[in-house]
Amino acid sequence: MTLLVVGSTAFDTIETPHGTAEKCLGGSSTYFSLASRLFTKTRLVSVVGEDFPADRRQVFEDHGIDVEGLEVQPGKTFAWHGRYSADMNSRDTIDVQLNTFGNFAPKVPASYRDTPFVFLANGSPSTQRSVLEQVETPRFSVADTMDLWIENEREGLLALLQQIDGLVLNDSEVKQLTGKSNLIQAGRACLDLGPKLVIVKKGEHGCFLFSTFFHYALPAYPTECVVDPTGAGDSFAGGFMGFLSTCDSLSLWNMKRAVAYGTVTASLTVEGFGVERIATASKEEIDRRFYDLVQFVSV
Amino acid sequence: MTLLVVGSTAFDTIETPHGTAEKCLGGSSTYFSLASRLFTKTRLVSVVGEDFPADRRQVFEDHGIDVEGLEVQPGKTFAWHGRYSADMNSRDTIDVQLNTFGNFAPKVPASYRDTPFVFLANGSPSTQRSVLEQVETPRFSVADTMDLWIENEREGLLALLQQIDGLVLNDSEVKQLTGKSNLIQAGRACLDLGPKLVIVKKGEHGCFLFSTFFHYALPAYPTECVVDPTGAGDSFAGGFMGFLSTCDSLSLWNMKRAVAYGTVTASLTVEGFGVERIATASKEEIDRRFYDLVQFVSV
Repeated sequence: MTLLVVGSTAFDTIETPHGTAEKCLGGSSTYFSLASRLFTKTRLVSVVGEDFPADRRQVFEDHGIDVEGLEVQPGKTFAWHGRYSADMNSRDTIDVQLNTFGNFAPKVPASYRDTPFVFLANGSPSTQRSVLEQVETPRFSVADTMDLWIENEREGLLALLQQIDGLVLNDSEVKQLTGKSNLIQAGRACLDLGPKLVIVKKGEHGCFLFSTFFHYALPAYPTECVVDPTGAGDSFAGGFMGFLSTCDSLSLWNMKRAVAYGTVTASLTVEGFGVERIATASKEEIDRRFYDLVQFVSV
Repeated sequence: MTLLVVGSTAFDTIETPHGTAEKCLGGSSTYFSLASRLFTKTRLVSVVGEDFPADRRQVFEDHGIDVEGLEVQPGKTFAWHGRYSADMNSRDTIDVQLNTFGNFAPKVPASYRDTPFVFLANGSPSTQRSVLEQVETPRFSVADTMDLWIENEREGLLALLQQIDGLVLNDSEVKQLTGKSNLIQAGRACLDLGPKLVIVKKGEHGCFLFSTFFHYALPAYPTECVVDPTGAGDSFAGGFMGFLSTCDSLSLWNMKRAVAYGTVTASLTVEGFGVERIATASKEEIDRRFYDLVQFVSV
């Protein structure tokens, strides 16, 4: 089934211990869709400026991603510049120019309105809610969020949590959102806020999945070659939602497999700068890593 | 088969956000043996002072632990005082009095010398090596270590690593030992130093197991009730070695199961102050958690 992602498209300048990449194609919807296209037809809603070159737009089209919803607005494209620490477990933002993304009011094209699977990449909760209102009857909707919204738009976020099926966030964020320092307690408390499914990402330590009657944990794929962690979370979400959208049922078993597919998809992304690795990944590579991961964790 | 542990016996004063426990029974060999006794006959080599009360010694005997090797020396018993942070992920040492443990020269009783499974709890590499020399033909020997020895007794530690089968240490220690910041690279590099098996403990994030032809990861048991993390690592080792000593073969499959048994054993320990929870644990509780954990991680 088809999948809709709403999020940012950006020019990223990335510094890691392995080097620097300037003005590469980035943004949450970019990483998500380049991951999810390995599984399913993906529809993109995002915004760029007039400086966004045709060959960058072509990247999406070449990967079978529907860009009818990729709006061009007067002005420049969102630009981000980040620098990672030596162990790549933290990063500093050197510069952010929101540009056209600063006034992003997503418009879901009429041809997208029947999309059953919806991913709301990190954005303000009110913007995320406006997208949900434009989709007819989503079968499964998931949102990402961040510390900024938990801190500054808590009411809007709590309203969003009543409307979505799943929430994806990292460990510090779920603790901040719920006020619980124990991660298992935090995951449970987050379910009480509305979503039926909460996925907590822990970077190199993998992720937890919480739902009413089960918890599930998965370590990260054991990669020895982390070149650039940018986009790992959005690629995870793309693999997760992409696999799920191919499943007949939204069962516990498929949720578990989807988390594993998200994990291996993210592991490919971090092995190259920007999108270079995920853009060249094949479904066969993903499947091979999926079976490796099953062995890696099976007791 | 029988199991030998050589390590400390202590009086611990522990402060956590859940309260304070004063002068409770602690030390690496205590936590280890109270865990391993759930699986197998455990022989203990340790030292206490003349102040060590008969009823504390009785705790070991009541749990079927062989204390022929528990030496009493003139002076006082090792005493430690620690205080945990609010999230219990770090702790400060408020006071350490090594006392009789400061001159600990372990003597393995003649009746212990045929023990097939040997665990060398954290101690100086030269002390650990002196134990190995006193055991006839250990079938499987594992050592714990810490930053102090990696920093100050590196040569002795490298010599020990040539003699033992397995090494247990935490993630920051394996990075320090090998100079690798990527954990998978660090685990592999550690194997190059001698041991056939390296177990890297990551606290609330679980553990990794490295061996020549396989890597394996397991999340921690999802406990919501962490009262006191003291002794988690030694209980893990006790569950791991305890289970392994009951196995016919030292196969990959049994190693995986042993890591899971170590994990659930540690999860019980942290649910009470000091040894109170692990000392009252039953094999049935351990088995129940083992099967829970298998579900929790299966893809």
